[in-house]
Amino acid sequence: MPTSQDDLRVATLGESRFASPLTRERFTPDNTRVLLDIDYAEGSLPSAVGFEKAGAREQIYFDPSQSAAAIVTCGGLCPGLNNVIRHLYYALHAGYGVPRVLGVRHGYQGLNQALGAPPLELTADLVEPIHHQGGTMLGTSRGPQDPEVMLDTLGEWGVNLLFPIGGDGTQRGAHALAQAARKRGQEIAVVGIPKTIDNDIRFCFQTFGFASAVGEAERVIDRAHVEAKSVERGVGLVKLMGREAGFIAAAATVASGEVNFALVPEHPVPFEGDKGFFARLGHRLDARGHAVVVVAEGVGQDLLASNAAKDASGNRKLGDIGLYLKERISEHFNQLGHPISMKYFDPSYYIRSVQANAGDSVLTERFARHAANAALAGKTDLFVGSWNGRIVHVPLAASIGVPRRLAEDSELWTAVEAVTGQSRW
Amino acid sequence: MPTSQDDLRVATLGESRFASPLTRERFTPDNTRVLLDIDYAEGSLPSAVGFEKAGAREQIYFDPSQSAAAIVTCGGLCPGLNNVIRHLYYALHAGYGVPRVLGVRHGYQGLNQALGAPPLELTADLVEPIHHQGGTMLGTSRGPQDPEVMLDTLGEWGVNLLFPIGGDGTQRGAHALAQAARKRGQEIAVVGIPKTIDNDIRFCFQTFGFASAVGEAERVIDRAHVEAKSVERGVGLVKLMGREAGFIAAAATVASGEVNFALVPEHPVPFEGDKGFFARLGHRLDARGHAVVVVAEGVGQDLLASNAAKDASGNRKLGDIGLYLKERISEHFNQLGHPISMKYFDPSYYIRSVQANAGDSVLTERFARHAANAALAGKTDLFVGSWNGRIVHVPLAASIGVPRRLAEDSELWTAVEAVTGQSRW
Amino acid sequence: MPTSQDDLRVATLGESRFASPLTRERFTPDNTRVLLDIDYAEGSLPSAVGFEKAGAREQIYFDPSQSAAAIVTCGGLCPGLNNVIRHLYYALHAGYGVPRVLGVRHGYQGLNQALGAPPLELTADLVEPIHHQGGTMLGTSRGPQDPEVMLDTLGEWGVNLLFPIGGDGTQRGAHALAQAARKRGQEIAVVGIPKTIDNDIRFCFQTFGFASAVGEAERVIDRAHVEAKSVERGVGLVKLMGREAGFIAAAATVASGEVNFALVPEHPVPFEGDKGFFARLGHRLDARGHAVVVVAEGVGQDLLASNAAKDASGNRKLGDIGLYLKERISEHFNQLGHPISMKYFDPSYYIRSVQANAGDSVLTERFARHAANAALAGKTDLFVGSWNGRIVHVPLAASIGVPRRLAEDSELWTAVEAVTGQSRW
Amino acid sequence: MPTSQDDLRVATLGESRFASPLTRERFTPDNTRVLLDIDYAEGSLPSAVGFEKAGAREQIYFDPSQSAAAIVTCGGLCPGLNNVIRHLYYALHAGYGVPRVLGVRHGYQGLNQALGAPPLELTADLVEPIHHQGGTMLGTSRGPQDPEVMLDTLGEWGVNLLFPIGGDGTQRGAHALAQAARKRGQEIAVVGIPKTIDNDIRFCFQTFGFASAVGEAERVIDRAHVEAKSVERGVGLVKLMGREAGFIAAAATVASGEVNFALVPEHPVPFEGDKGFFARLGHRLDARGHAVVVVAEGVGQDLLASNAAKDASGNRKLGDIGLYLKERISEHFNQLGHPISMKYFDPSYYIRSVQANAGDSVLTERFARHAANAALAGKTDLFVGSWNGRIVHVPLAASIGVPRRLAEDSELWTAVEAVTGQSRW
Repeated sequence: MPTSQDDLRVATLGESRFASPLTRERFTPDNTRVLLDIDYAEGSLPSAVGFEKAGAREQIYFDPSQSAAAIVTCGGLCPGLNNVIRHLYYALHAGYGVPRVLGVRHGYQGLNQALGAPPLELTADLVEPIHHQGGTMLGTSRGPQDPEVMLDTLGEWGVNLLFPIGGDGTQRGAHALAQAARKRGQEIAVVGIPKTIDNDIRFCFQTFGFASAVGEAERVIDRAHVEAKSVERGVGLVKLMGREAGFIAAAATVASGEVNFALVPEHPVPFEGDKGFFARLGHRLDARGHAVVVVAEGVGQDLLASNAAKDASGNRKLGDIGLYLKERISEHFNQLGHPISMKYFDPSYYIRSVQANAGDSVLTERFARHAANAALAGKTDLFVGSWNGRIVHVPLAASIGVPRRLAEDSELWTAVEAVTGQSRW
Repeated sequence: MPTSQDDLRVATLGESRFASPLTRERFTPDNTRVLLDIDYAEGSLPSAVGFEKAGAREQIYFDPSQSAAAIVTCGGLCPGLNNVIRHLYYALHAGYGVPRVLGVRHGYQGLNQALGAPPLELTADLVEPIHHQGGTMLGTSRGPQDPEVMLDTLGEWGVNLLFPIGGDGTQRGAHALAQAARKRGQEIAVVGIPKTIDNDIRFCFQTFGFASAVGEAERVIDRAHVEAKSVERGVGLVKLMGREAGFIAAAATVASGEVNFALVPEHPVPFEGDKGFFARLGHRLDARGHAVVVVAEGVGQDLLASNAAKDASGNRKLGDIGLYLKERISEHFNQLGHPISMKYFDPSYYIRSVQANAGDSVLTERFARHAANAALAGKTDLFVGSWNGRIVHVPLAASIGVPRRLAEDSELWTAVEAVTGQSRW
Repeated sequence: MPTSQDDLRVATLGESRFASPLTRERFTPDNTRVLLDIDYAEGSLPSAVGFEKAGAREQIYFDPSQSAAAIVTCGGLCPGLNNVIRHLYYALHAGYGVPRVLGVRHGYQGLNQALGAPPLELTADLVEPIHHQGGTMLGTSRGPQDPEVMLDTLGEWGVNLLFPIGGDGTQRGAHALAQAARKRGQEIAVVGIPKTIDNDIRFCFQTFGFASAVGEAERVIDRAHVEAKSVERGVGLVKLMGREAGFIAAAATVASGEVNFALVPEHPVPFEGDKGFFARLGHRLDARGHAVVVVAEGVGQDLLASNAAKDASGNRKLGDIGLYLKERISEHFNQLGHPISMKYFDPSYYIRSVQANAGDSVLTERFARHAANAALAGKTDLFVGSWNGRIVHVPLAASIGVPRRLAEDSELWTAVEAVTGQSRW
Repeated sequence: MPTSQDDLRVATLGESRFASPLTRERFTPDNTRVLLDIDYAEGSLPSAVGFEKAGAREQIYFDPSQSAAAIVTCGGLCPGLNNVIRHLYYALHAGYGVPRVLGVRHGYQGLNQALGAPPLELTADLVEPIHHQGGTMLGTSRGPQDPEVMLDTLGEWGVNLLFPIGGDGTQRGAHALAQAARKRGQEIAVVGIPKTIDNDIRFCFQTFGFASAVGEAERVIDRAHVEAKSVERGVGLVKLMGREAGFIAAAATVASGEVNFALVPEHPVPFEGDKGFFARLGHRLDARGHAVVVVAEGVGQDLLASNAAKDASGNRKLGDIGLYLKERISEHFNQLGHPISMKYFDPSYYIRSVQANAGDSVLTERFARHAANAALAGKTDLFVGSWNGRIVHVPLAASIGVPRRLAEDSELWTAVEAVTGQSRW
């Protein structure tokens, strides 16, 4: 993570000029930092590079009573979206006294009024019960819109505080929008809130919704275990989310404690051969009579792609590692003359549409409140991330395009290895 | 349901000759009946046909202290199997004082010792915690075994009380076994407990596990609703169990209250055409922007079969109505130039491997206790069913081979029509 | 249950005169009955007494397009109240086309406009999400109001269809109101829906909310079991609802399968003495090291009252059997020099404020739809009950004032005895 | 937090002398530190004080194959105890190859064989299913035992690795034991795992079980909200754990988002007076018609004590702030002539006996594995804590006796103030 202090410098719209209306006694001084690296060898201190610490500022840039905010949710569902919307509304309206908070409909598309529906004006009655449901009350969609068009729309609406909630693509869009605004001199604070159920955004260690998703995934794995144990040579195969990062698969594996093999995109294992996954699975089945396998959806894409190339049939299903393994595992043991009983689970949307659990609810409040703090203070072109247990300001340019991956020497992967014992079979 | 009193007559092994060791004061006289038909037009009574009522008998046929029991679980998982095993053990051992209760491993296969593992001798410690888990602690398998071989095994073990837990196929096997036992004069009471997550067994109105499965299915539907509502023209499509009977799909539809179309095998609707399902779905989407569709797995098998015939590729997936609809619905609206956003849910095993809910737990206790009562009383070739709110003795010959279906004028289907309004679009 | 056919005759406002707008093909003929008693000794049929069967009638009394309905929820919370409101709205508005459905605020008090808030005009948007929450969106209160005042209010509102949802007291109020309406010739159909979490209403075998409450109670008992098992001589004591009827305590006991003693008001046991509860509890603790006890709140009221008289301190807490047992059990074993570790659970409101489970959701739809059917058909002074698995019309006069109790020879109490083995210690 | 590097220095039994049998490639060098303070003002680095970082060491002190371990769980229940036991067993036995892992029965008492039951020899079959249940399979008890007696027992059993799982008192006992062992030269690594549902242990930011408890508490609060909203002037009052630290009350308040007043021991508010809690509650009720109040059990103990002193009746119940507020709030509004409807919730044991959620399950694995790593490496007189997102070695002497409190300027309390708006009424 070779990052300099300059990379972590946050953009501001200008000097703060208003006293904060917040009544709490303690504010966070604007020069407070949170250290980037905190592990060190005794005797040698970590280098003095840190993030700007999030928090309410005593002096702020915008007059809340003259401000208007817009919230936009983009991309796939994630537990906690409604909580973020609700807490942003409360932080802005009840906390700072911002009179108008708009809910943009269906992602960035709602900022292009040629395409999208008009925004929803949020009220306490509207947002009060929404955290009891998954999904997003504003609707969502995928894909970018022209920054200039979006800035025009925001200008027409009089919005000076924009909160894009979404993943890497959404934050790229936010960055483009913040840059375009600076260019044309439109005063708007763009403060993102990272949303990624895969937990794969750089400089956001813990994202909301992840823990809730892991909880649901654990439940699915437990049922796969029940199914696998109830028959002879039962194999419970669970496909989980994770196009390029195996965090959900790994965390659910550790949480469940019933998984024998966890396959993630970051740490490919050969399927065939003496030391391959199929052979190891066979040893496990011979020894214990059943097995539970978790596979992240991004696993084996090379294999599936090359197969596709060979066979040229355009069969989209070859891209689905779950269906591929479901068939190949059965085939493998049929060929050996020692068939298995395959129980396949593909929970897909079921996991991401759950409501946020208590921990994620707490996290959404934190992200939302600090996003409001940052925007009112005139910070822009950043998102609120979590780092070493603190909420920090992360310049969008420092995060976008550099995905987070499950490192081999991480606590989580070490735990997966310990809990599954998968390299011992 | 043209059934005569003679069809409902239960077989017994002989005259009861021992006093029941049960200490409760009230026993059920052996000639107590529960009426088959209880609706009538005022002025005309229903006909005098009824089931033998289950219950403890004051005089019983077997000396419990000289008896041995065997429990066998067959076929697919169903919530409550472990509860049934546990309550059978308690009723037999703690209730009647039967010294040995064997758990047969992996279905009927465990009664063929050439194939199966030796039985488990059940104890209080073994069965105490099992109801907190789904599945079956004994394991299960599919398919029949030779009755003569099974009788030999049971004879070797000294078993005179056999409890086969399973669906129509299992009860057929139980019937064959009871008949063969009578033929060879082997004294064994064969008392089945119906297990069918689809609730499709004749003369068993309410089967254990069904309500738990519906509860899980409801949860999946609610998430499909969240997904569908969160995007423009979102369609949440949920495939549920039900090869030939749509009870789970129907009950989960009513329980959820969020379903717009429920498709079941019993009441086929055309997909294409002006009044077809796709057209109605289009009206709904135009009017409300999203829709939730539930389909039972047995729907449209004719259609899928004929497609298969045309294409002759042996593609098993064509038999999957969920995948078929997932693709055809998208295709249909693409062709109309008005695409939808498809969210497909296939919870499959997830639903049936859940532990029993409170209601099903109560039901399992009732079935298990009355199965023990019937067997000790020397009844055989029957299962314990539920009818008009009572537990009754159903001769196996009266039930097997005649599946239960969701009638068009039933309460449940009427509720589906009312709640979805699906015939109004 | 000595009841004659005349007692079960339902009052109607007059001859049906309109064709039902419902489009379903099968209607229930008005002379269809459901037999009251369905058990019989072979050879002797049950007597020809039955309830009127609920269902849509082909001819109805009121013109739906000229009708207005009011829904009122009274008394304590019960899982499913919001589902009933929602399904009544759909059945009346979407089903029959009744243009106005009013939600009365805070029980009968809302029908006295000198005291209560004005009614809520229900809409699809208002009722759509409410079934995901416990409680009642209309609010509730206890106590009666003057029937004449309520009739005046209903007259002013133009309401001809009234649905009081509540327990025995509420149905008494409904009966008084129906009688007063007949007297003054005000045309109003009064169709109650029984609501009793205790399941203690005569002629309603299964009430909505009961199963959900039992499910929650089971969870509490399971935790009491965890606590009791984790310490030496641990006693998990759980107080559950049930002033005069022990149905919840009994059903949760059977569902849990972890209870050793269940105490209900109907079957008092002495606490003291050689065969008393304390002595039995001691035997259990000596044998197994821990115990779980469930007590319904109505147990031991005589004892507590007489104690109160003796001590004359006005200590209200003496009326609380949970707190009494909590202290007396500890005291008893302290005096014996063999102390226990007491873990007391009083879940109270927690249980009744849960949302309805799937089974109760289905049940609420059924009650609500048939209540609408009955009211439009001009039936009055009745509630919709469940009997032998059917929904039936129960004249209010036949039910009110005669509470339902847990009979000693019932299935449920037999199951309690079997599962706890409490009479064997 | 004025702590020097010397205070954080961990004791070891001696030089490491065996190669670790663990096969993972990356080990944590023994001189790796995790910085204590990581916030700083730009330009001034935090001081070079840090904890020893947990992790597997390449060289270890004990020969695993010659080692024996003992696990002991003390004090009140906490979600995740069984997970810790299970993961300790796996880490020691499957990971390091320690042949014997003993489960001490019922807390420290089991280390005094004059009092306690003999230990349980743990096996894979015994520990495999235990994480699906709350509580502790080993049993627990309160209170210390003589260190010398415990050392004698451990010596007899041949135990050189001891894992005491418990709160501040337990860790004091562990410290005394480690000191006594050093004194008498008994080679035993004493590695604690902090267990505190209140999250009030110094230098352990996040303890296992806390998140699960907060999740349960949130559910109770949501039901209190349902009850309060369903009546006029409804007050839902929820008493939660927290003798001296309000973390659970605060986190559940934020998670729920439905609480209007959260009272914790650290931030006392006057009940009476113009600006007191009762007056503010009255404003809220007048404005919104209902309110939800959360109170930690440690609140108002001074008040209750002084009352007790005045009345000298020895009434223990005066120590219960929940019952006190339940009565005083009702009384207060009765006296004002504007009564409220009180709904009181005291979930108590219900919250702590739940099984661990997914996040806590992951956390238990981490604590358990690193405790095993530390003990095998010959570290002693420490516990494994979590600090700034890492697992670290905390010398027992640095933590015991200094409780952790909810600081007024903490993220969590700031969130409570923001979410409740309680200082604004």
